[in-house]
Amino acid sequence: MKRVLIIGIGAGDPDYLTIQAVNALNQVDVFFLMDKGDDKASLIEFRREICRRHIKGDDYRFVDATSPAWARDAEDYRATIDDLNHDKQDVFERLIGEELAEGECGAFLVWGDPTLYDSTIRIVEAIAKTGRLTFEYEVIPGISSVQALAAKHKTTLNRIGQSIEITTGRKLNEGFPTDVDSVVVMLDARDAYKHFVDQDFDIYWGAYIGTPDEILISGKLKDVAGDIERARDEARRTHGWIMDSYLMRRATDGAT
Amino acid sequence: MKRVLIIGIGAGDPDYLTIQAVNALNQVDVFFLMDKGDDKASLIEFRREICRRHIKGDDYRFVDATSPAWARDAEDYRATIDDLNHDKQDVFERLIGEELAEGECGAFLVWGDPTLYDSTIRIVEAIAKTGRLTFEYEVIPGISSVQALAAKHKTTLNRIGQSIEITTGRKLNEGFPTDVDSVVVMLDARDAYKHFVDQDFDIYWGAYIGTPDEILISGKLKDVAGDIERARDEARRTHGWIMDSYLMRRATDGAT
Repeated sequence: MKRVLIIGIGAGDPDYLTIQAVNALNQVDVFFLMDKGDDKASLIEFRREICRRHIKGDDYRFVDATSPAWARDAEDYRATIDDLNHDKQDVFERLIGEELAEGECGAFLVWGDPTLYDSTIRIVEAIAKTGRLTFEYEVIPGISSVQALAAKHKTTLNRIGQSIEITTGRKLNEGFPTDVDSVVVMLDARDAYKHFVDQDFDIYWGAYIGTPDEILISGKLKDVAGDIERARDEARRTHGWIMDSYLMRRATDGAT
Repeated sequence: MKRVLIIGIGAGDPDYLTIQAVNALNQVDVFFLMDKGDDKASLIEFRREICRRHIKGDDYRFVDATSPAWARDAEDYRATIDDLNHDKQDVFERLIGEELAEGECGAFLVWGDPTLYDSTIRIVEAIAKTGRLTFEYEVIPGISSVQALAAKHKTTLNRIGQSIEITTGRKLNEGFPTDVDSVVVMLDARDAYKHFVDQDFDIYWGAYIGTPDEILISGKLKDVAGDIERARDEARRTHGWIMDSYLMRRATDGAT
């Protein structure tokens, strides 16, 4: 039987790797590396470095595959993602079908946590459901950028007994959720937080968290929104891409 | 300068510990263990075992403190929690003030992730703000029960491009959030999911995840609600306490 491991490698700091993930790495024969284009080459290199650092011996191999590209600014977001995931499914199916021998263990190394805003689980499940390939799969959780963000800012995600919403910049553009006071925003290409500068929010923002390039900014949204926007612009120019997230919380009279 | 580390030890499986957490454990002189009563003695033992397993040498000590008790069924939840946290703050302040010498490093080992439904960060921050003690503190993230739950069920927390709400049983009793279709529920003492059996939901429930006592149940809410309720009752009788969580998701026509 073929085995596929979907391993969360944490968001940024190589030391975010869990012992479970290290043990899993050591069972893998083939690592599938999805190349997302030149500007993210450093993310591929990060995965190779994690393997070098944590795997005993060198009894494993890498298979590089080109990750299908997507149009981030497309009008129909959902259709775009669906198309992308179909293309990815074809690629992943070929990898599991042709690059992994019977009895071998293959792995996808997922940035952060595979259960949060990542399609690998969904795609592998869809392949399993087609019945065209027979394999087992398993999911290894990892420290998400959401947790890394809150830990670096030394703050909790929730207020006492209150709810948190984890959402996207796209959804936040439609308005601040009505029934929560803490919102974590991932995948915000367009500075959605700026819509709320006239309201009393605290914001905790971070980019490249856990890496040597880490940037943290926090404070009253109205005071720091400009700083965050400038930091994002500059980081995009310097790195060619940005990986950031933020926590926004309605300000209260000192209660947390 | 005194240092205090708030270390997430993950939710259940000792292998959920990150390399960062292991490195942190090895810097600690004093571990503060908060005893929450007899029925949770195994959670204290789990922390001691983690130290034995991951710390090189035995150059550290434990200080046991009794965690203030709280009335889970109290009418005024917020006031009860506030009182509890004031009591805890007194205990923590005494620990940091009296049990930790200048230049030493103390640690609180937090189940799961310290940024999610845990008061340690809030309490330590409050102590720092009083200015009565001088110390530095740091937060080390851990695998939360939310992530462990989703990983064990091999499912994602969010649907494509959609939001997730993380909430409590108490809040869910007030109704299902309007603007999300995936909700993770923690701290549900009263089977809040039962209010929704007449609607079309999928549920992924788990208890003692990552431990030898792990129980997982998933399916259509209307089909498995009874199984979950029975499993919870039985587990409470067997263990004296339960630690569980669940993901509820509005069913759709096959889209994920």
